[in-house]
Amino acid sequence: MTVAEAIEKIKRVGTDSETIYTSYVTDDKKRLIGYTTAKDLLLAKDSTILIREFMDENVISVTTETDQEEVAQMLSKYNFIALPVVDKENRMVGIVTYDDAMDIIEEEATEDIEIMAGMSPSDTTYLRATVFEIFKQRIPWLSILMLSATFTGIIITSFQNKLAACVALTAFIPMLTGTGGNSGTQSSVTVIRALSLGELELSDVIKVVWKEIRTAVLCGLTLAILCFAKILIVDKLLMHNDGVTVYVALVVCLTMALTVLVAKIIGCLLPFIATKLGADPAVMASPFISTIVDATSLIIYFMIASAILF
Amino acid sequence: MTVAEAIEKIKRVGTDSETIYTSYVTDDKKRLIGYTTAKDLLLAKDSTILIREFMDENVISVTTETDQEEVAQMLSKYNFIALPVVDKENRMVGIVTYDDAMDIIEEEATEDIEIMAGMSPSDTTYLRATVFEIFKQRIPWLSILMLSATFTGIIITSFQNKLAACVALTAFIPMLTGTGGNSGTQSSVTVIRALSLGELELSDVIKVVWKEIRTAVLCGLTLAILCFAKILIVDKLLMHNDGVTVYVALVVCLTMALTVLVAKIIGCLLPFIATKLGADPAVMASPFISTIVDATSLIIYFMIASAILF
Repeated sequence: MTVAEAIEKIKRVGTDSETIYTSYVTDDKKRLIGYTTAKDLLLAKDSTILIREFMDENVISVTTETDQEEVAQMLSKYNFIALPVVDKENRMVGIVTYDDAMDIIEEEATEDIEIMAGMSPSDTTYLRATVFEIFKQRIPWLSILMLSATFTGIIITSFQNKLAACVALTAFIPMLTGTGGNSGTQSSVTVIRALSLGELELSDVIKVVWKEIRTAVLCGLTLAILCFAKILIVDKLLMHNDGVTVYVALVVCLTMALTVLVAKIIGCLLPFIATKLGADPAVMASPFISTIVDATSLIIYFMIASAILF
Repeated sequence: MTVAEAIEKIKRVGTDSETIYTSYVTDDKKRLIGYTTAKDLLLAKDSTILIREFMDENVISVTTETDQEEVAQMLSKYNFIALPVVDKENRMVGIVTYDDAMDIIEEEATEDIEIMAGMSPSDTTYLRATVFEIFKQRIPWLSILMLSATFTGIIITSFQNKLAACVALTAFIPMLTGTGGNSGTQSSVTVIRALSLGELELSDVIKVVWKEIRTAVLCGLTLAILCFAKILIVDKLLMHNDGVTVYVALVVCLTMALTVLVAKIIGCLLPFIATKLGADPAVMASPFISTIVDATSLIIYFMIASAILF
């Protein structure tokens, strides 16, 4: 076929096609051998040249087995209007266009966000979903995380006597576990998103851990100093809480710094571990991290308290 | 200009244009009056017809003041390859293409995810950002949330005597605040995402609250029953914790059900309030919700405990 004949054919069949801006060239066995764009055809100097000579043979295609997220990333990366889909014998079976890719990018982001918030991804929009569908989407993680909080309960119970001896320690538990959870979430969510956008690879794990350690030291020190000042001003001066001694403040602030460090290391490692195991890294986000960090920060807290106070 | 002349002009200037697949028609004052696509031009039956008659006058455009997220949503919704950008006098000043939109959709999702995880959005990728940049991105929310945990500390301190009288209550604090936080996060994140995709409007608030209440009742009852069974099996039978009486179990489970209800109502309301106030609803997600729900669930816990146990 010549360029002129190709334009004629596009005019004939174009009305019903999804896109006429990219045309794929196949051989007589329907195997994909090249492509050309409407832009190139329109701008062609010589319209009698054969498509075989005219087409670009470096055609990038996806197979019927390719994950939709990967297809969307490719379309976005190369700024293509469409990508051809081939079967195992390189026979062309369809195309994916940029508007499919936009929908996929949005869907996948929503899915990631839902999983990160401890929900199973849903196919329907919120207003269309029934209450029971939303319930089914949310109850599994709520139950799992509630039951896994048994461990934090056991840790507190085993330090019950020491807590009874220094009741002031109890008041700082939510602040410590909360800050630990937030620190871990920041790291895990950053890594999850970067992995999902292809900005990070599995092999970057050492670089990431090292970066998180340095960030954690900066964050941990800042928070520990801020926390010490807060305890002196709010708990000692304003609330006149006599149980809060300088030693208690020291225990809390040391725990704070150490918890932030451990939380950030766990937070950045878990998504890598999930990817390595072939699981979706997004499940490692916020709620899951919080549960692990809750337990870890309590152990750190009680160990430091035992060393300094008792 | 006729259709044939238009095709000739596109051939002449096309090589340097961002897209040749949509052509915008302006009058002699550069005001946008219509558009036509390469598809229509190529498929035109009669190439001597004037563009003025041939073009589509219903041209959808954005202004230089339109938010980039809105532009991307429009491109995605209408499956356009490009959208023309006009100034206040409707003079054409540029175009936004589908590949810009894909980048914007990804960027905005990343920004939402970062804000939801308590971080300021960043412009650089993780590996390129310096440790100090990452620190600056993360420390503000960590500090604010740590300091706001002062309230939970004050609540615990004011119930210190009762906690000392029934130490078993302390062990359930992380489970209750954690489950409350997770429940609230699920609701807020769902609403934030739906608002950001345009699936929900401000006027849907009553519908959303009613749906969340019914979901919360289902989730709360399920978790309360599960929690009662867990306390009897793990804490009573396996751990032989004598402090955990049936009354303590009742207090914990009632608190659980009520906390889930309150958390889900707060969780779905906050993003609407933020939108109403003109703030980004994403700041209302996970960490912020957790802090509010921590305080609320502790107040519920101690009030129910006071009523049943003391």
